[in-house]
Amino acid sequence: VPGPIDALAGRLPDGAVSTDPAVIAARAHDRWALALLRAVRGDPPPAALAVVTPRSVEEVAETLRWAGETRTAVVPRGAGSGVSGGAQASAGAILLDLSAMDRVLEIDETSLAVSVQAGARGNRLEEALGTAGLTLGHYPQSLAISTVGGWIAAFSAGQSSAGYGAIEDLVLGMTAVLAGGEVIRLAPRPRSAAGPDLRRWFIGSEGTLGVVVEAVLSASPLPGRWAWDAYRPAGFEEGFATARAAAQRRVHPLVVRLYDEPDAALSFGSLGHRGGPVLLFGWDAAQPWAVAQRDAVRSWARAGGTEDLDAAYGAHWWEHRNDAVRTYERVMGEERLFGPGVVVDTMEVAALWRDLPALYPGVRQALLARAEAVGCHLSHTYRAGASLYYTFLYRAADDRAAEEGYLALWREAVAACHAAGGTMTHHHGVGLLKASSLEAELGAGGISVLRRVKDALDPDGLLNPGKLLS
Amino acid sequence: VPGPIDALAGRLPDGAVSTDPAVIAARAHDRWALALLRAVRGDPPPAALAVVTPRSVEEVAETLRWAGETRTAVVPRGAGSGVSGGAQASAGAILLDLSAMDRVLEIDETSLAVSVQAGARGNRLEEALGTAGLTLGHYPQSLAISTVGGWIAAFSAGQSSAGYGAIEDLVLGMTAVLAGGEVIRLAPRPRSAAGPDLRRWFIGSEGTLGVVVEAVLSASPLPGRWAWDAYRPAGFEEGFATARAAAQRRVHPLVVRLYDEPDAALSFGSLGHRGGPVLLFGWDAAQPWAVAQRDAVRSWARAGGTEDLDAAYGAHWWEHRNDAVRTYERVMGEERLFGPGVVVDTMEVAALWRDLPALYPGVRQALLARAEAVGCHLSHTYRAGASLYYTFLYRAADDRAAEEGYLALWREAVAACHAAGGTMTHHHGVGLLKASSLEAELGAGGISVLRRVKDALDPDGLLNPGKLLS
Repeated sequence: VPGPIDALAGRLPDGAVSTDPAVIAARAHDRWALALLRAVRGDPPPAALAVVTPRSVEEVAETLRWAGETRTAVVPRGAGSGVSGGAQASAGAILLDLSAMDRVLEIDETSLAVSVQAGARGNRLEEALGTAGLTLGHYPQSLAISTVGGWIAAFSAGQSSAGYGAIEDLVLGMTAVLAGGEVIRLAPRPRSAAGPDLRRWFIGSEGTLGVVVEAVLSASPLPGRWAWDAYRPAGFEEGFATARAAAQRRVHPLVVRLYDEPDAALSFGSLGHRGGPVLLFGWDAAQPWAVAQRDAVRSWARAGGTEDLDAAYGAHWWEHRNDAVRTYERVMGEERLFGPGVVVDTMEVAALWRDLPALYPGVRQALLARAEAVGCHLSHTYRAGASLYYTFLYRAADDRAAEEGYLALWREAVAACHAAGGTMTHHHGVGLLKASSLEAELGAGGISVLRRVKDALDPDGLLNPGKLLS
Repeated sequence: VPGPIDALAGRLPDGAVSTDPAVIAARAHDRWALALLRAVRGDPPPAALAVVTPRSVEEVAETLRWAGETRTAVVPRGAGSGVSGGAQASAGAILLDLSAMDRVLEIDETSLAVSVQAGARGNRLEEALGTAGLTLGHYPQSLAISTVGGWIAAFSAGQSSAGYGAIEDLVLGMTAVLAGGEVIRLAPRPRSAAGPDLRRWFIGSEGTLGVVVEAVLSASPLPGRWAWDAYRPAGFEEGFATARAAAQRRVHPLVVRLYDEPDAALSFGSLGHRGGPVLLFGWDAAQPWAVAQRDAVRSWARAGGTEDLDAAYGAHWWEHRNDAVRTYERVMGEERLFGPGVVVDTMEVAALWRDLPALYPGVRQALLARAEAVGCHLSHTYRAGASLYYTFLYRAADDRAAEEGYLALWREAVAACHAAGGTMTHHHGVGLLKASSLEAELGAGGISVLRRVKDALDPDGLLNPGKLLS
């Protein structure tokens, strides 16, 4: 007897639906450390029914109509680079793989606006823009293994957010498909006061309110020539003042990064770094006014007792900035660089500048209670605050024992973050990992609003169940 | 027999509820031209039941609990400076006047974050910030007669949006009260990826999804010294190229404005302006890098055949920028400067740079079909596009006849805007005036999402009925 999956296959072009177990298994999780841990120890992922690979907006709409009719859950995914479990398979769900919708549709060289399908990867988009002398300026570490749709769904921010803004600053227009198959097309606007900004309702929704299928994004001219300034502040917190001044006094570097001593040792040890924190500024030196802005930042840095470092620090970081992605499989994949029982993960929080001096040690101590090799850097600076990005290594007796301790570590670190006034995620999203903490994050009123909107837009709870809202 | 209004008065402090007809009449509309026209010709406004003037979040919550229990509609208002009818009274509703909640609660001089009640007026907020050497950088023409809550509700943008961003870039945190009285408190964040940004769901919601009662806003250091550059491009559209270059090539003026010939004659005639458009840039000249940025803009302007004008044009604009507010009563109030049957109004649209050359004449011709003295300036520039702000004078046989023609003029101008790819409002909002065009603006899918969310958050439709969603 043909089942509902056969019916779906009949409504889509040949090859769009696969029930091949290998195809399903390859898309059963993202890069969440716990999902990788479970995979290497051989636990089967939740049993999804099929992988659907649409090639058009209409095919996504047809799939969601079918899902509504058959009450089938849908887990959307791009390239699977998320680290919070947002693309984890659910039992009985279909996996909606948008990676075949990867075309750059149009580049408007007057408005610097690029229309692109949600499954396009970042490096492909940059190549297309580069031929027009443009860049999106959105450079997550995952650039080569993440998609436009994933960036929007998970509220992505890139390494040059100081210069170009984060994903929400780049989204001009959007096409999304709601549960049940209704298509909404939000025309590209530089800004509009015609009601609340519906684009923003889907940014960060992690596929729970709709599936983003196309976007129009705001690009910029490629920087003319990168240049770097590097400093060693007296201490990590002493470096905050210079980073804060740069964010508040209207200089416009493209990159701002401040490493604490452990993270600096890890990142710059190969340069012979002699200890202490490292503060980096990246500039477009082809702009004539960059000289005066670099001088200003240098004077603020020196006023705080900061020592100059070689500009090679910046070039080194730029060259190696995405190495972690390439070595990731060695750490958490089959090779298990640090052996069984070990989980390496990252946590990125954010707060107002006023709260950062307490947030930094608060989260650090919570992590150190269970983890080792805890390093931290400050990045993504704003007038009002900044992000802190921790890397840590958690070691248990074996892979089985690691799960409980890892989850306890996260609960404790999130609680420490909230106690210090921070948000538990700056750009990695909530996914499965942090869903149980979302009420503590948003408050009872905030979570109530979000749940009511979820129920209004997806009354049967079919879109990415269990993610974001536990 | 005591009615529901007496019951409400009993639940609030003495004096919080007034049924005095003069108090109600003074708050029965905002500065929407049609409401003013109806007022001067003596039409009674819709009969509201009472004015409620809360002094705390709890009093707003108590009022909305009462409103939910009694199914009474609530029209929130700040200072009533809106020009789209968003604060127009409804028959049988209470008017929730937030103007007594006008305190600046705290200034965080590290994060440059100011906590403020929604009823605080802009000039009062600027005074408080100024004592700390700060500014919000949000300067709508209505600064002295508009409130923080109104800015958020109506998606406000100020004259220095090029330098400081518009209201959505300034909101760090928010407290709002939902229909039924539930209070949501969204903690101030520089950025967060913990779900979609709930702050943004209320910005531009015009009091239809909740009542914003407090906000935490992102301030900046006061500019050190204003300086101006002025140019005369060969034509209005020729000026677009320079404004666009400034927005896309990472110079950072505080103000960018480009006037077409009629608007330039109106704005700069007293300076002996000899015709042609006027392009203004305002800078913080205390920043050492401003010199190089001003030089760059000058070179882009001259490359386009643009002639230098005296910097006095900028100082003149700055000095007189808010005169329109002071003379408004003479135009549309009791004095009727241009006589009965005349309506003076403004329309602000926005589009991608690519669409502006068609949008400008498209809307202009639609307005000229019924109006005279149509002037336009470009302001609020973005990488992807800009706003066009039209002023026009519509003349009918008498005040009675003016209404129909005025509404037809708006329908036609909005249709022309949409046909050219523009949004019908950049920062004045939708209100009553444009509610019937919102579906054309957002599309069937967009309006469906907004209606579903409205029903989820305000199932009885009590919050500002008829505004935004017709």
